[in-house]
Amino acid sequence: MIEFKKIGVFGRMQSHDIRETVTSICAFLTKQSCDIILDTRLATDLENLQYPHADIQTIARDIDLALVIGGDGTLLSTARSLVEHDVPLLGINRGSLGFLTDVKPHEAEQKLADILQGKYTMENRFLLEATVNHEQGYGLNEIVLSAQGAHHLIQYEIYVDQQFLCRQRADGLIVATPTGSTAYALSGGGPIIHPELNALTLLPMFPHTLSMRPIVVNGDSQIEVRLQNNRHTHIQLGCDSQTFINIHEEDASIHIKKKTKKTILIHPLSYNYFKSLRSKLHWGSKLV
Amino acid sequence: MIEFKKIGVFGRMQSHDIRETVTSICAFLTKQSCDIILDTRLATDLENLQYPHADIQTIARDIDLALVIGGDGTLLSTARSLVEHDVPLLGINRGSLGFLTDVKPHEAEQKLADILQGKYTMENRFLLEATVNHEQGYGLNEIVLSAQGAHHLIQYEIYVDQQFLCRQRADGLIVATPTGSTAYALSGGGPIIHPELNALTLLPMFPHTLSMRPIVVNGDSQIEVRLQNNRHTHIQLGCDSQTFINIHEEDASIHIKKKTKKTILIHPLSYNYFKSLRSKLHWGSKLV
Amino acid sequence: MIEFKKIGVFGRMQSHDIRETVTSICAFLTKQSCDIILDTRLATDLENLQYPHADIQTIARDIDLALVIGGDGTLLSTARSLVEHDVPLLGINRGSLGFLTDVKPHEAEQKLADILQGKYTMENRFLLEATVNHEQGYGLNEIVLSAQGAHHLIQYEIYVDQQFLCRQRADGLIVATPTGSTAYALSGGGPIIHPELNALTLLPMFPHTLSMRPIVVNGDSQIEVRLQNNRHTHIQLGCDSQTFINIHEEDASIHIKKKTKKTILIHPLSYNYFKSLRSKLHWGSKLV
Amino acid sequence: MIEFKKIGVFGRMQSHDIRETVTSICAFLTKQSCDIILDTRLATDLENLQYPHADIQTIARDIDLALVIGGDGTLLSTARSLVEHDVPLLGINRGSLGFLTDVKPHEAEQKLADILQGKYTMENRFLLEATVNHEQGYGLNEIVLSAQGAHHLIQYEIYVDQQFLCRQRADGLIVATPTGSTAYALSGGGPIIHPELNALTLLPMFPHTLSMRPIVVNGDSQIEVRLQNNRHTHIQLGCDSQTFINIHEEDASIHIKKKTKKTILIHPLSYNYFKSLRSKLHWGSKLV
Repeated sequence: MIEFKKIGVFGRMQSHDIRETVTSICAFLTKQSCDIILDTRLATDLENLQYPHADIQTIARDIDLALVIGGDGTLLSTARSLVEHDVPLLGINRGSLGFLTDVKPHEAEQKLADILQGKYTMENRFLLEATVNHEQGYGLNEIVLSAQGAHHLIQYEIYVDQQFLCRQRADGLIVATPTGSTAYALSGGGPIIHPELNALTLLPMFPHTLSMRPIVVNGDSQIEVRLQNNRHTHIQLGCDSQTFINIHEEDASIHIKKKTKKTILIHPLSYNYFKSLRSKLHWGSKLV
Repeated sequence: MIEFKKIGVFGRMQSHDIRETVTSICAFLTKQSCDIILDTRLATDLENLQYPHADIQTIARDIDLALVIGGDGTLLSTARSLVEHDVPLLGINRGSLGFLTDVKPHEAEQKLADILQGKYTMENRFLLEATVNHEQGYGLNEIVLSAQGAHHLIQYEIYVDQQFLCRQRADGLIVATPTGSTAYALSGGGPIIHPELNALTLLPMFPHTLSMRPIVVNGDSQIEVRLQNNRHTHIQLGCDSQTFINIHEEDASIHIKKKTKKTILIHPLSYNYFKSLRSKLHWGSKLV
Repeated sequence: MIEFKKIGVFGRMQSHDIRETVTSICAFLTKQSCDIILDTRLATDLENLQYPHADIQTIARDIDLALVIGGDGTLLSTARSLVEHDVPLLGINRGSLGFLTDVKPHEAEQKLADILQGKYTMENRFLLEATVNHEQGYGLNEIVLSAQGAHHLIQYEIYVDQQFLCRQRADGLIVATPTGSTAYALSGGGPIIHPELNALTLLPMFPHTLSMRPIVVNGDSQIEVRLQNNRHTHIQLGCDSQTFINIHEEDASIHIKKKTKKTILIHPLSYNYFKSLRSKLHWGSKLV
Repeated sequence: MIEFKKIGVFGRMQSHDIRETVTSICAFLTKQSCDIILDTRLATDLENLQYPHADIQTIARDIDLALVIGGDGTLLSTARSLVEHDVPLLGINRGSLGFLTDVKPHEAEQKLADILQGKYTMENRFLLEATVNHEQGYGLNEIVLSAQGAHHLIQYEIYVDQQFLCRQRADGLIVATPTGSTAYALSGGGPIIHPELNALTLLPMFPHTLSMRPIVVNGDSQIEVRLQNNRHTHIQLGCDSQTFINIHEEDASIHIKKKTKKTILIHPLSYNYFKSLRSKLHWGSKLV
């Protein structure tokens, strides 16, 4: 059981006011004798908050726990930044539940008190590592290959562990982790994959071949996507729809595989994946 | 490497004439010094064929290899019958390729010669075991819970490893193996699951909740389906759409899990799962 | 504007207690000087209710308005029974809104008061008429051709206005009206069709050809479905999943077309189809 | 019956060599005493071809028939250019059949001979007209609203004839004609709409609300899409994926409705829409 003493606090002000939540949680943690370091970006946004701050790469080497206040998007970007440092993350949502930020603000203090006393579960979630032309990107949810601009159709071949799978003409290809199966891939018709399953989903976007279907393969597979004859097309590799690699060659080859380092999620003991599913997907609940 | 000396031959005459294929393959095997035993049902259908025959449970204890001549449906029923006996199966299709019967008649002698010389691969495919009211059924493809007759809607709760997943009102529920992911589940919108993945797909049929999606869970999960308040409804449990268990209680509980014994498939060295996918699903092939 | 003086009251006690709603609405209508006739089946279920009653075919010739208290299912069966008599229907739901029963119990008296004063809209919805072997069935939602029992796959050809459309192997075929596009067809992947559109949706159920898609044709089309070689299969024609015609021939031909007589729905002035969609399908609502 | 004397010839050399087909068809038409005018772009590509040429707007005022040699894409752009001039179009495909270019090269002379003798059918197909900020675009297949660049999610409200339909967060919105229902909309899960149906399909792309479905409304509907709060997003309106209007405001309103002028397609008498469907979608054919 890890003892959480030094806690990094992350969050973004962009679209939602998280000031109040950050302030009260920091006050609470201080009372619990934790050391707080704010992410510089958050500190700048909030001003006036009297805690030390540092940039994320500096914090990363020093903290026991990363507290992410905001939505799943904020947790995704923090997780990618911290992935080399084995720092566990705890997500506090700004209102509704997220799939990754599964503590609600009004219950944050109670859950944090429990977690600081060692009452929590720890879960590893794997990321994807995409390599193209010596550039690398990571995705905790998914890697998306797609065209930007007017010409939206791309052509490519997919290889799984060096074996030819198929050739597709489509708007793009999503390669999703189980974590990402309830995100972008879900809106595109992909299946829900339980997070403990070691699997990748290959999901073509608007494929021209009508008999194409989502394909789920072993999570240890080495995926290669070979672009073919994509003239006049500006192709981009999106990582969690947050960072992007531009591909300038019309015949580039993209390699996608599981990253060795994992993201570590901390959950309160009350966390239950199926409950999150029912709640987020509005499945209604069990009859009495 | 198993040496195949005693070979059981299985097939069904119902819809397709496989007489010629059976005759020539038996002659070929005899030349190769193999001992042939025909399944009694096949022997009866074919008459005049001068080989010993026995019922499947008798043959099962004695043979090194089961040769199934026909379509995937014939292989499914033979596989279920042989599952306790560790007998490997080789499927010879009657014309087009099947997912499970992946040797074509015109290439059968060459492939068989290779296989008898030890040139083959062996693959384990798991089955599902469904238990309801002390009755058991097996499915290599899938277990389907559905209503028969006028009242087609059923209500049930799904539990995965004793955890409540969701409540559904639907025409039925398909629980599919990776093998079955390219069969009935595929026509119902399920994903393609690579056969080496240890996973189960839960697929509601015509669900009333529009946000329901196929769910893929660990293959070692214990699935429980609790029927609820299904008055005036005649519910059936289908195993590979071939054998059926009638459920008379309106609140029965069905337990589904992986069977310990596996089906062993023999493939020629030229076998390639992705090639079968491309061919059977008409995905076109790789550009030069 | 029709004046509603004689009002038939319909409903079913089966699964939900509508006694209170029926009692209060009848009392209210009596105060409004309306003449009430109960459907005999409802009168029997409720006992003690001091109003005249008659069977539906007798009532049909005499009333100005049919008040249906219950869910969409009750309205469907009442609508089919009344279709030859040009009697408009008003649906009062038992709790939540239905697509067809769009008045809630707590607002029923106010809405009824308005409607009796002529404040309402009238809408025609067409039904389908299916003919097979001189038997006929009607569907306000849909006609479903499917197999009963173990062997669930059927084969058939579809002709639209005598032109061959396609051959399918599937679990069944749904032919839906726009009214039915938000019912069974929707759970099977069909599109939502606006009720004022003169169109039919042809929707194969679990089709074997993966490139099959829902097809929407002119509402005046004459659809013919020719069953082919369905040995050992017990095929049924379902009308709104409520009445059924058994098909004993393995090669029967089913003719489906729009019925000349329409169902007339009465809505309060506040009725809005899109609002029903948003509410029933949980689409959330307009941002401020 | 229109007599076709002056024939404009259109085509594009970009991706496929249509030189031979153009040369032989022009020679054939000359023998049939037709006057040929080449589109200047085609004349430039082909050089050496000894026929008069002019730009499309000049030709448009003068010809009786536009012959489009190439694929559906070429026909779409020619149709949009000619739409104000009531010129019928005949599409000759470069190899395989298209939905719009339904004459194959090897049968072109025979079909043309028939058509010049008046043996043809004529079919009107409607286009959509999209207006945003005083700019207009047309689509014979579809109008697509989508984001370009990194931030792919857009928010908007849809109004149909001034009535609020719903609010969506999605990658984009496709508004398709029946002609377009077998094009881009089909790869996104839309239904097939018979071309004679007066209907529009509204199809959200990767919608965040899982219960969203394609919606088919009256073809005479006035559609308004109100963009909302799309900061940092570059939104584009695509017309048949060929011409584009950039939307710079974050809260623009887009109006989409049927264009008054129609595209006129000429088909040989052998043309059959359902046959095209079966052939293009690989539905297999009728059993003997």
